[in-house]
Amino acid sequence: MNRILLNCDMGEGFGAWRMGDDALAMPLIDQANLACGFHAGDPLIMARSVNLAMEHGVRIGAHPSYPDLQGFGRRHLQCSAEEVRALVLYQIGALDAFCRAAGGQLAYVKPHGALYNDLVRDDALLMAVLDACHCYRKGLPLMVLALADNGRELRLADEADVPLMFEAFADRAYLSDGQLAPRRLSGAVHQDPERILAQALAIARGEPFADIDGKPLQLRADSLCVHGDNPESLAVLRRLRAQLDAL
Amino acid sequence: MNRILLNCDMGEGFGAWRMGDDALAMPLIDQANLACGFHAGDPLIMARSVNLAMEHGVRIGAHPSYPDLQGFGRRHLQCSAEEVRALVLYQIGALDAFCRAAGGQLAYVKPHGALYNDLVRDDALLMAVLDACHCYRKGLPLMVLALADNGRELRLADEADVPLMFEAFADRAYLSDGQLAPRRLSGAVHQDPERILAQALAIARGEPFADIDGKPLQLRADSLCVHGDNPESLAVLRRLRAQLDAL
Amino acid sequence: MNRILLNCDMGEGFGAWRMGDDALAMPLIDQANLACGFHAGDPLIMARSVNLAMEHGVRIGAHPSYPDLQGFGRRHLQCSAEEVRALVLYQIGALDAFCRAAGGQLAYVKPHGALYNDLVRDDALLMAVLDACHCYRKGLPLMVLALADNGRELRLADEADVPLMFEAFADRAYLSDGQLAPRRLSGAVHQDPERILAQALAIARGEPFADIDGKPLQLRADSLCVHGDNPESLAVLRRLRAQLDAL
Amino acid sequence: MNRILLNCDMGEGFGAWRMGDDALAMPLIDQANLACGFHAGDPLIMARSVNLAMEHGVRIGAHPSYPDLQGFGRRHLQCSAEEVRALVLYQIGALDAFCRAAGGQLAYVKPHGALYNDLVRDDALLMAVLDACHCYRKGLPLMVLALADNGRELRLADEADVPLMFEAFADRAYLSDGQLAPRRLSGAVHQDPERILAQALAIARGEPFADIDGKPLQLRADSLCVHGDNPESLAVLRRLRAQLDAL
Repeated sequence: MNRILLNCDMGEGFGAWRMGDDALAMPLIDQANLACGFHAGDPLIMARSVNLAMEHGVRIGAHPSYPDLQGFGRRHLQCSAEEVRALVLYQIGALDAFCRAAGGQLAYVKPHGALYNDLVRDDALLMAVLDACHCYRKGLPLMVLALADNGRELRLADEADVPLMFEAFADRAYLSDGQLAPRRLSGAVHQDPERILAQALAIARGEPFADIDGKPLQLRADSLCVHGDNPESLAVLRRLRAQLDAL
Repeated sequence: MNRILLNCDMGEGFGAWRMGDDALAMPLIDQANLACGFHAGDPLIMARSVNLAMEHGVRIGAHPSYPDLQGFGRRHLQCSAEEVRALVLYQIGALDAFCRAAGGQLAYVKPHGALYNDLVRDDALLMAVLDACHCYRKGLPLMVLALADNGRELRLADEADVPLMFEAFADRAYLSDGQLAPRRLSGAVHQDPERILAQALAIARGEPFADIDGKPLQLRADSLCVHGDNPESLAVLRRLRAQLDAL
Repeated sequence: MNRILLNCDMGEGFGAWRMGDDALAMPLIDQANLACGFHAGDPLIMARSVNLAMEHGVRIGAHPSYPDLQGFGRRHLQCSAEEVRALVLYQIGALDAFCRAAGGQLAYVKPHGALYNDLVRDDALLMAVLDACHCYRKGLPLMVLALADNGRELRLADEADVPLMFEAFADRAYLSDGQLAPRRLSGAVHQDPERILAQALAIARGEPFADIDGKPLQLRADSLCVHGDNPESLAVLRRLRAQLDAL
Repeated sequence: MNRILLNCDMGEGFGAWRMGDDALAMPLIDQANLACGFHAGDPLIMARSVNLAMEHGVRIGAHPSYPDLQGFGRRHLQCSAEEVRALVLYQIGALDAFCRAAGGQLAYVKPHGALYNDLVRDDALLMAVLDACHCYRKGLPLMVLALADNGRELRLADEADVPLMFEAFADRAYLSDGQLAPRRLSGAVHQDPERILAQALAIARGEPFADIDGKPLQLRADSLCVHGDNPESLAVLRRLRAQLDAL
């Protein structure tokens, strides 16, 4: 099993507005999911975020979204598969332009927010995103949610000839099938740093951990989604980075 | 001297709104300048416009703009050179994604509207656009306005190592230095098809034609900007295509 | 029973883009539903549309939408009731500013597209829109879809102290409960002018007409939604206007 | 002379992005200039900001801007007078809708950013904004920059029958004519709290203070623009509030 990576959503300011301080978390992660202008990020922020990631040797992923700055891409928007394919291609290309200009290249694609969530339920949308990845560059990986059973995702990705990367969350409670517990449920988001670190290490080692009902759940994940936008999450991230480096 | 090409601004609808019927003009031109979402064009329109151009063997140029859908990119917006470099890179990459997905690649860049006009006056902005072209792909040409003397453009492009393409207009009156006569001047836009065709053929042959004061003006141009968004302009375009093919 | 009115969606251009020619239909209608900038319409178009309506003595309705220019407000967007109340208030106020500046005032509110459709299904959203109307100006009417049974709408509007106006369609086939037949169904949109006129007159007289299965349906409507954006629809509109004037 | 008021730009978040914490400064000011959605502010933020202001008895001003979220309204955008009149009317009406819904009403209009600056130089734009105020509601005041000589503004406002409010800045250095010293000049923004307080009190008392060259400048101002978006500016604001209350 490959060593697990740490990925973080970044470049999520817009114009005069900032969100978090990417400079603090960037040295601690392996993969930066950069907003592409549809839920956050403008061309100048994207240019600077790409440069920051490359200075730290962090792999750059596109973080495409439904077009919804006001809703930060968190609101479901009814789009056809053809629209989704096109809006993902658009955002992939826009971000990769900055990677190319800086002498790098886009490493993977991780859809954002409501679009990410919709992929779990809607085959046509998942196929549209897979097609966008494949058509943009053969071999460009798509990052999706690690489930107890990712058979559906593996089958569709295999048809589309797109490599998958599986993502897990250290600070979220899981349902028994590996879906994230909805945020409205009590206990859906772990606050205790020890709990977060324990879940992260279990996932990193491929060991079972407790789902929201306390039953063991085992996920096969390539990358852990982390946060670094406040002092608490940064502190956890620093400890996690150290513990993973020590594995 | 190379045979002169015909270029046309296309893909200028947005969402439910259409502008012109690109399918009629596409078979008649050599180069399609496709809107990239900032003044017109959305991802779906861009995908379809790229496909239409490729079906007809038409070269695809990016037509980047200031971010101004409401003003169709025709209003000057005060941007720094760093912002302009970033917004051009963003739009180039976004459009090229659709070219790549369709098995092609972006052939050149022609800025749109107010941005195009600002390049004639502002060295820092022109250098920013040149840098965007060069950084995106070495050798990617920039299309600029053919003037009586393009020394400034050639010098800056040479520094940036970017090939230039020079564009002329068959339906616009020119000042003596090769600048376009401002639209507010009487006679700034030719309406007479014979006059348009005569100016087009003079430019195509590298021969002088009359500027707005009736004095001879000679331009060295690689491409003529044409229109095909109404029956009159389409009729002129058909005749022009035939006459150029017969040269 | 009051004489039935004719309402038409108007002011649906944006920036350089036009949609239909409102000047042709305006003399034929009683109520203009004007786009408020979220699915179409910009401040300049709104100012001009308000002036055009007032020149013809046409009552002005706000036509608020989800924020979705690219989708023309036709795509469902997941919004909370609080968001919907706020976005309706925003658009009502924006349009009324032009009415006030022209010496008039907003006459009613008719939600657009996906928002209009969502009101039929979602009590919380309908209550949010009713509250926006009531809070903006006591007595400001809301226009909703006339159904075989509008008991739900009447009850909620009564609670909110908002007068309702019921709208019917002459060119759409109906399900037996008075819902519009989905456009994907064959026969959902009437093409035959005689059929459209016959359905319009039946509704105007309060008489039954055939639903999509040929069974009689009776609707109580205050206004008929008409179109005038192409020569065919304008021709039908002219005949309808003449026939209603002759009732 | 009336007691000087304190005004503050507020409601300048957008969607998920926050800017400052209005709740801290609101109890300390007299007038809140609320963003109207074009440079910042969305309908939900506007609704909440209006409610917050009304809870504290703070007068609400519209803070209309060029349409430029990405540039926060700070970039000059080339607009016609007709466009400016329309975009100001639109934003005034939108904000007033929330005032009306909360049982209040808009108290004044203060243009934002580049639009505010352009009014000092461009008579046609100033007349367009004055006309928007007058047409929206007779007697609605416009807030403009206090200069050594506001003869031009008073003359145009008198023609338009619009009352003016003059605004001065405690933390900005002035040129000898009362224009703000451009930010690129050294010393253009005062950092020293004592200096800021001294300038504020001089303006409040109608006494001269030192311009950027150390020469005395006297301004007649109705309101001081203050900031409360960081701990330092809040601390100054608290002291200023106390000192003005003690005058």
